[in-house]
Amino acid sequence: MDFLDELIQITSNERVSTNETVLEQHSKDEAYLEPKNPDYVVFPINSEEVSAVIKLANKHKIPVVPFGLGTSLEGHVIPYYGGISLDFSLMNKSIEVRPDDFLVTVDPGVTRSQLNKKLKQYGLFFSVDPGADATLGGMAATNASGTTSVRYGVMRDQVRNLEVVLPNGEIIETGNLAVKSSSGYHLSSLFVGSEGTLGCITQLTLGVYGIPEVIVAARVSFADLQGAVEAVVDLLAGGIQLARVELVDEHSIRQVNLSNERDFEEAPTLFLEFHGNDAGVEHDISFAKELLAEAEGSNIIFEKDVKDRNALWEARHNLAYSFVHGHPGKKMMVTDVCLPISELAGGIQAAREKMDALSLDGALLGHVGDGNFHALLMIDMTDEEEKRKAEAFNEYIVHYAIDRGGTCTGEHGVGAGKKKYQQKEHGQSFEVMRQIKHAIDPNNIMNPGKIF
Amino acid sequence: MDFLDELIQITSNERVSTNETVLEQHSKDEAYLEPKNPDYVVFPINSEEVSAVIKLANKHKIPVVPFGLGTSLEGHVIPYYGGISLDFSLMNKSIEVRPDDFLVTVDPGVTRSQLNKKLKQYGLFFSVDPGADATLGGMAATNASGTTSVRYGVMRDQVRNLEVVLPNGEIIETGNLAVKSSSGYHLSSLFVGSEGTLGCITQLTLGVYGIPEVIVAARVSFADLQGAVEAVVDLLAGGIQLARVELVDEHSIRQVNLSNERDFEEAPTLFLEFHGNDAGVEHDISFAKELLAEAEGSNIIFEKDVKDRNALWEARHNLAYSFVHGHPGKKMMVTDVCLPISELAGGIQAAREKMDALSLDGALLGHVGDGNFHALLMIDMTDEEEKRKAEAFNEYIVHYAIDRGGTCTGEHGVGAGKKKYQQKEHGQSFEVMRQIKHAIDPNNIMNPGKIF
Repeated sequence: MDFLDELIQITSNERVSTNETVLEQHSKDEAYLEPKNPDYVVFPINSEEVSAVIKLANKHKIPVVPFGLGTSLEGHVIPYYGGISLDFSLMNKSIEVRPDDFLVTVDPGVTRSQLNKKLKQYGLFFSVDPGADATLGGMAATNASGTTSVRYGVMRDQVRNLEVVLPNGEIIETGNLAVKSSSGYHLSSLFVGSEGTLGCITQLTLGVYGIPEVIVAARVSFADLQGAVEAVVDLLAGGIQLARVELVDEHSIRQVNLSNERDFEEAPTLFLEFHGNDAGVEHDISFAKELLAEAEGSNIIFEKDVKDRNALWEARHNLAYSFVHGHPGKKMMVTDVCLPISELAGGIQAAREKMDALSLDGALLGHVGDGNFHALLMIDMTDEEEKRKAEAFNEYIVHYAIDRGGTCTGEHGVGAGKKKYQQKEHGQSFEVMRQIKHAIDPNNIMNPGKIF
Repeated sequence: MDFLDELIQITSNERVSTNETVLEQHSKDEAYLEPKNPDYVVFPINSEEVSAVIKLANKHKIPVVPFGLGTSLEGHVIPYYGGISLDFSLMNKSIEVRPDDFLVTVDPGVTRSQLNKKLKQYGLFFSVDPGADATLGGMAATNASGTTSVRYGVMRDQVRNLEVVLPNGEIIETGNLAVKSSSGYHLSSLFVGSEGTLGCITQLTLGVYGIPEVIVAARVSFADLQGAVEAVVDLLAGGIQLARVELVDEHSIRQVNLSNERDFEEAPTLFLEFHGNDAGVEHDISFAKELLAEAEGSNIIFEKDVKDRNALWEARHNLAYSFVHGHPGKKMMVTDVCLPISELAGGIQAAREKMDALSLDGALLGHVGDGNFHALLMIDMTDEEEKRKAEAFNEYIVHYAIDRGGTCTGEHGVGAGKKKYQQKEHGQSFEVMRQIKHAIDPNNIMNPGKIF
């Protein structure tokens, strides 16, 4: 029996594909990297099938690459060494809520919007919001975060337990249902962010939160980026509980105005959100107003009603779309570094100067409460010179971040794109990561060519 | 040159001891377990010395047991296989504050009260409060937590970077200074809670918080434990931000009254603390009052002034002391399980019934916002029957917790005392922990006989 027949025997004829279109769909994510087809796409329907497929692959030393919805940004799901793309889109049904425990247990293919729709019935929400409507399995694999992590933490902070199929086909659980534990090594935190290199996530138990009593959004303009970042530091130091704090630069606002026929002030702009009880938020807002005025913020607007809040955040929400729409034929390359807060203003300034020096077209925006910022560069992929410049820009800010105690990736992960920075960032501890990888996956079948 | 001479050559004559009194001081912690002397006690003064000592020990396959202040509760620092007790009491000077980043970098022998004294000058505080004035290195090694973790998280949540000396003597850094990162495996979370079995922590960078604008304490009595736990669930579900929420049972209050000539109501009692801005706390309190009244709480007292707050919390603070004081000649054995919140009331009830059935004398108290509770048992260590009963009680509640999705240890760690529960709790994932241990410490020199 050949390998394909064995795969079909484990699953079914319809759930193993070698169709060129299907292979091509699994050859890429949203990165700017070269695609590569897998040899097979398998659509498992439960953990036992995942286990059987991986056991078989391990026996034949054939690579396995877990695939959610392909929204990753550093080539995480590209099967550079061929083999199986393991697509979790059929494992997307179960959402089991334990409202008294503020927990939910989900299939790995469930998306965050699907989860939030269900949780709303219980007055609960899932906090991690990376922008894309990614699968929760994929979000755990890359330790996704986004606009709300300043308040609620990143994906790793929400994961209470993972069911994982190891490279040898064994099924383990990494945690439990208790709020905290000091029992043994914290495997949940190890598997979150391991990008499918240590095993396949087949179920997740996640912490969730009560929907806040009051949500207020705000928008403020500043004369320069420096001033906007300093205002954020002032707000954080003042003990104001920000639920979101996003910075968008003037180039981005200009693009939003152009693509959407708007007239937002073309200045560095902060988008804020406050969650809490009525009195607490009221107090935070009045203190924030003082601090923002002292920091010379202008056009300060606060909105409470959901429709008005969405209108206020429009420029931030439509930003990526506006750039893609405004640059037909170009591809978006998104950088992602995270700096200590005290280094953030300098880092954003340096990034802008470097972009200008290289004559690159793009936006700067960031989850500034975490020290995390992105450059969105619109690249003509047929222009080798422009591609080289974009790569040089990325290298420049990555080294800038690592040299100042930051990281080459705040939330997008390593994938294939940031492998080359791992040795510099981690030094001797990169060897420890290699030892762990080798101990758990001695045949290197799980997502080979990623991280390492 | 013999091993002792080599140790002296690395450090100094005064900083290596084989004195019987010094060995005996390093033979035990606060656990109820049998002590065992190390062969040597070494007092390093910097990471390079730690590295040289561990490299030497690894060459000769001699065990190394890191020692902070010996406040651990499960025999973590007992050198069952002899070798070196590596005492960090001389590495306790450096405290480097980065106030704009809400970070501090400390030597591993610095204690939490020493740190908080320094941080106060900056309007900052370190949140983890396990009761004992432990060293921060030890607190990271066991993933300590305590009364404030319901609001600020456990030790693992605060650790941004660790300098670790590996079993081969290499010095690594596990993290960075950024708030978040998706770069490589999260080694900080792996080393936190690894109890010295993977290496020695020689420096820590920790997240800290601004001292809250307002702190209000509260105390409430209930007719039964069930009612008290249900009230906590109501408070959490109501979105009230509790900074501390401690349950103390009626037996404990009686002991405090006896030992301190007080007349606190001898009923299950909740001790609460609220942190925030003036208006937010005011709002939380008025909502809490409503919920506590609905839950049939009585004698509800709120205090804002620091002296009044301390008086209000007295029964909780003096509890362990009161039991020790009230049972001369007996030793305290502290259990430590953590349950899903929805299982907590049942767990505490079952624990009380089991204590009564075994005629054991002791208190029940808990960090109930996390589902974590302790029994304090006063044991006559010369009475084999009583010791057997205490052990049977501990086993009973550990199995109760694991069977309901909880953990055998919420915050004290595994050490030697809870090794026997690891296989049941972790199942197949315990083998993954073994693989990691073996990959990083192939000669098993680091704290052998703990966890595994």
